[in-house]
Amino acid sequence: MGELELIAAIERALAERGGTVLRGPGDDAAVARLPGAVSVTSIDAVVEGVHFRRETHSPADVGHKALAVALSDLAAMGADGAHAYVALAVPSWLTEPDALGLVEAMERLAETTDTTIAGGDVVSGPALFAGVTVTGWAESEQALVYRDGANPGDIVGVTGALGGSGAGLLVLDGLEAGIDEATREALVTRHRRPVPRLAEGRALAAAGATAMIDVSDGIATDAQHHAERSGAAVEIDLARLPLAEGVTAVAAAAGHNAAELAASAGEDFELLFSVPADRRAAIEAAAPVTWIGEVRQGSGLRLLDAAGREAQLSGYEHLGEPH
Amino acid sequence: MGELELIAAIERALAERGGTVLRGPGDDAAVARLPGAVSVTSIDAVVEGVHFRRETHSPADVGHKALAVALSDLAAMGADGAHAYVALAVPSWLTEPDALGLVEAMERLAETTDTTIAGGDVVSGPALFAGVTVTGWAESEQALVYRDGANPGDIVGVTGALGGSGAGLLVLDGLEAGIDEATREALVTRHRRPVPRLAEGRALAAAGATAMIDVSDGIATDAQHHAERSGAAVEIDLARLPLAEGVTAVAAAAGHNAAELAASAGEDFELLFSVPADRRAAIEAAAPVTWIGEVRQGSGLRLLDAAGREAQLSGYEHLGEPH
Repeated sequence: MGELELIAAIERALAERGGTVLRGPGDDAAVARLPGAVSVTSIDAVVEGVHFRRETHSPADVGHKALAVALSDLAAMGADGAHAYVALAVPSWLTEPDALGLVEAMERLAETTDTTIAGGDVVSGPALFAGVTVTGWAESEQALVYRDGANPGDIVGVTGALGGSGAGLLVLDGLEAGIDEATREALVTRHRRPVPRLAEGRALAAAGATAMIDVSDGIATDAQHHAERSGAAVEIDLARLPLAEGVTAVAAAAGHNAAELAASAGEDFELLFSVPADRRAAIEAAAPVTWIGEVRQGSGLRLLDAAGREAQLSGYEHLGEPH
Repeated sequence: MGELELIAAIERALAERGGTVLRGPGDDAAVARLPGAVSVTSIDAVVEGVHFRRETHSPADVGHKALAVALSDLAAMGADGAHAYVALAVPSWLTEPDALGLVEAMERLAETTDTTIAGGDVVSGPALFAGVTVTGWAESEQALVYRDGANPGDIVGVTGALGGSGAGLLVLDGLEAGIDEATREALVTRHRRPVPRLAEGRALAAAGATAMIDVSDGIATDAQHHAERSGAAVEIDLARLPLAEGVTAVAAAAGHNAAELAASAGEDFELLFSVPADRRAAIEAAAPVTWIGEVRQGSGLRLLDAAGREAQLSGYEHLGEPH
């Protein structure tokens, strides 16, 4: 299979969804009808040896993850996913079936998120590189949630569970944590195949979230952004962090505090948000969330331990590079 | 300068144009107001060792070229440039001033093309990789020109001059062609800093072009796409190709036929188009073009020599990988 055949095979693997893509791959550029008044666009790069290793991620995992990471940013704006554009640098170790498998995994995630992969570029490269641009839309800017709208008095919540991705990488790297196989698999899948919280993001935006960010680098980093961008202080109670099943056992086996791993490892791609306290019921009706802190007057992030004292993280590194 | 400082310096180097970007770099995603009914989007990747070498391209050249190559695809649709999103993988040999210089060169091209660099991602990588997504717009799909609209009886034209980029790389690689310094510099600049023909693309679209493609891989390849996509035959007279100044001398010094180099080397990023013969005057009023061939019934590309016989190219390779 030559390069042109690979590109043709990739194009055959892609479906159009929603009727908004008037011209997809194969021309100079893609043409799309715009179903909203504003576009929401994010670009993310996933690089071999930096964001993943060949030992722990199949090409299909890489394809899934590259699109998921980009879509997660749209989720954190409260936007719909819509169109994705994929630049792939393919190294010599990646076979053409591997490259096609990468795209097929991306296409499966596109299907479940109502996204159309509308264009791309496939080139050679010294390492596997996937750069994904995703564009969604909204009826107006007011329908979106930025990082900077948190106000003192807001309560802080998070979707889903934390620490699963970090724990998944630890077991992938060979840690024996004494957990059952189903739990192990769930953690590994959590690491390799993160799920962008698009529906939750839209629901939280509609229910009144004032600021939102996806948990890509860990709450210890992302809540800091949340606080800085909003010009307020954010307090997070580590004891209230929702832990994914198996995280406590894996953290113990690795000699880490479980809450600290959950706060620092990152790549869970859950949504961290703030909302006025009187919107609590509306938010709980919109999405499964856990309340983990408050917004205060002041600046910066304070992580509190179970006794309400400021916690010092012992330096567990988040996974790979910041997203 | 750490990664966060580099990103902050990059953000300071970027300006917003046209008032359409409501939120640029710094949030989860960029938000843009949509000035047209359809979007036109292209993604292109430029990779060290594949599309350029460190010996022949400065980081600033790479920044310029990565954006220019992407914008050239919008030009070939007859669309405006509007918003660009840049994913950069930065290897250890690239200093932070180098990375900033790359972005600044990109920003200068953005300025001259009325484009806003609205978002990006900067990560580490084993080699320099620049993935650029550009989005433009049009009032309707009918305002755009695809690759597949050429009809038998159309005449075929090209903007500007050809062969300059290929000749520029030959002299960069040390070929002594006996040309004066100004001509040499023009060829080298042509190779390192291609200019996307956005204004020409819009003018040709408005003047009735039926199919259009940018000359990235050389007319011998791109006119083939033009013919295949349109389901027609395209005849190109090699003797009519407009040669950039110095190309004849450089080709002779390298032992190539000049027209063949101009047809095969690629990366000139001029626009190849077809148009009904009765639109000739309208096209000539719209942009400086050279008429180089005709569309016929049939299929495929025929390159004709000065005697009107089918020419066989002797296999001069186009530059690097297909775009």
